[in-house]
Amino acid sequence: MEVIRMEHGAGGAAMQRLIKERIVRRLGGSGAEVPLEAMDDSAVVDGIILKSDSYTVKPIFFPGGDIGRLSVSGTVNDIAVIGGRPLALASGFIIEEGFPIQDFDRIVGSIAKTCSEADVFVVTGDTKVVERGGIDGIAINMSGIGVRSPALDSNLAEVRRRRALRSRWLLDSNLADGDAIIVSGTIGDHGIAIISCREGYGFESGISSDVAPLNKLVESLLEVGGIVSMKDPTRGGLSNALNEWSEKSNVGILIHEERIPIKEEVRAASEMLGIDPLDVGNEGKLVIGVVPEKAEEVLEELHRHELGRDAEIIGHATKGYEGVVMRTRVGGLRALPPPIGDPIPRIC
Amino acid sequence: MEVIRMEHGAGGAAMQRLIKERIVRRLGGSGAEVPLEAMDDSAVVDGIILKSDSYTVKPIFFPGGDIGRLSVSGTVNDIAVIGGRPLALASGFIIEEGFPIQDFDRIVGSIAKTCSEADVFVVTGDTKVVERGGIDGIAINMSGIGVRSPALDSNLAEVRRRRALRSRWLLDSNLADGDAIIVSGTIGDHGIAIISCREGYGFESGISSDVAPLNKLVESLLEVGGIVSMKDPTRGGLSNALNEWSEKSNVGILIHEERIPIKEEVRAASEMLGIDPLDVGNEGKLVIGVVPEKAEEVLEELHRHELGRDAEIIGHATKGYEGVVMRTRVGGLRALPPPIGDPIPRIC
Repeated sequence: MEVIRMEHGAGGAAMQRLIKERIVRRLGGSGAEVPLEAMDDSAVVDGIILKSDSYTVKPIFFPGGDIGRLSVSGTVNDIAVIGGRPLALASGFIIEEGFPIQDFDRIVGSIAKTCSEADVFVVTGDTKVVERGGIDGIAINMSGIGVRSPALDSNLAEVRRRRALRSRWLLDSNLADGDAIIVSGTIGDHGIAIISCREGYGFESGISSDVAPLNKLVESLLEVGGIVSMKDPTRGGLSNALNEWSEKSNVGILIHEERIPIKEEVRAASEMLGIDPLDVGNEGKLVIGVVPEKAEEVLEELHRHELGRDAEIIGHATKGYEGVVMRTRVGGLRALPPPIGDPIPRIC
Repeated sequence: MEVIRMEHGAGGAAMQRLIKERIVRRLGGSGAEVPLEAMDDSAVVDGIILKSDSYTVKPIFFPGGDIGRLSVSGTVNDIAVIGGRPLALASGFIIEEGFPIQDFDRIVGSIAKTCSEADVFVVTGDTKVVERGGIDGIAINMSGIGVRSPALDSNLAEVRRRRALRSRWLLDSNLADGDAIIVSGTIGDHGIAIISCREGYGFESGISSDVAPLNKLVESLLEVGGIVSMKDPTRGGLSNALNEWSEKSNVGILIHEERIPIKEEVRAASEMLGIDPLDVGNEGKLVIGVVPEKAEEVLEELHRHELGRDAEIIGHATKGYEGVVMRTRVGGLRALPPPIGDPIPRIC
């Protein structure tokens, strides 16, 4: 009997296949502006952006954040990176009988604080309680809606001054030969913080999750203009995000290992754990595709913000290669395939 | 230490208190047209209806339906009863490692079929897999957006021909002295089907869930006009729905026990199980508040539809009583308080 395996939820190739073959094939066909078939960060229907994400992170409190902050940030970021301004959120709690009310209060407090940072509100919700063993503590679904960001049109006009672009949104399929690839900061922090926590040296490791709402940063970047695509590299990490771009845009991507910002302690922990930091989730980072003429300006704008101060141009899209290719520190070239399964389950 | 208890998720008084004191108090303040504070079936922000619901029903396949059909119907119905036309859905799956792919396919197939009945599409989604024991099989969050139903304005104009009504939506707080209360069909079917199933005489009991999308029925009713409020009496059942109305509209409600349609087999099973069918969830029924002059017309329209053929006028709103009061079969009067906790956990 075929069964669901951990890698089906890990943000890599196995999950993409499950979704494509078993969900999209049956539920697609809406004709929405950005439909299920696009498998992008959010959908767009009649000008309304819709996003849903369930959060099952373990542990629920971790260095740098908690499941509440994660749920707001994750959903807000997915709305922002398609070119949206988050309008409202809907929270769905599934709670295990016996869960401490004190922890629940702390989570709701964290949701409130993160909403306030992101300038968005939870306007509706749902609470389900299941018996002991029915769920591991708490899971949160955070859904959200958004509208077109006011700066999106001027941003796209900047792109079109340089080259043709059909889409009205920042889709995975927008990348073209020559576009610069920028990451907004250090890679791997969230995933490595979670796994360190589970391995028992959590708060002492000095590694902290980057979880943060990025919608205000995104709006500032759109005002600079020239951005063709954006992703928040969560499950599956940077390697998965780049591979999705390459596949959907039908263009190669070349990145330079030495330019990818990674914190020293994250690199050390990754080596010890045998995990590639490029394969693990980030919850407060952007990968940005920009027309080359605007790359430096976008980078400068990033450096003006606390959430973008470690940003780097890590490579560019190119017809010269197939898929995602990395120039290593020692000067060699290697393929950077999407992870099959995430090395760390339940990081979000 | 205070902990979450089963009744906190049961749709009754304990859940209302948890939500009011621990969620709404912290997350409210959006200023949305229908905000979190309204604790109504859906929220409305900038003319967009937003709804989120998590489904943890056990068993996932039951007489008359399954978790997939339930998730689409529940969310579509909550959008419909506020006066909305569902526009799109977002599905969030949390699946246990080892869950049979065959069952997953069956659930997705059921989602597709129910979407087609309701004339709505899933446009985005999310899939999380947790390790064995992390969840009991599968939970689904179905969120959805909707827009103002085309027939809502003419319906409200019919109301305003008879009396003042401020709200632009079919809110719980709209009921007024004299309004007729209609139920669209037999009460208790879903909850009793689920519990019968769990007790081991499921498919043999002849009791079947009523789970169905009601949005098309709702649109037909709005075309008749005069409807002031609608609810789908899910968790907490008819008694909870009526009590929410009474409290939020600040008006008493008198209903007549003998007029409440209940299937003979549901009544028999309820007695055997010691459960009041008025306290258990329905998933394909409406409770409708109508200006008295239009009550018969709305009832006739209901009778024209398969999903409304057992509809009855069961009582009316009245200043003559406080809270919800039931005239019993033997002619006495008794208070009908909201259930503290649902007698049947995990029915949706």
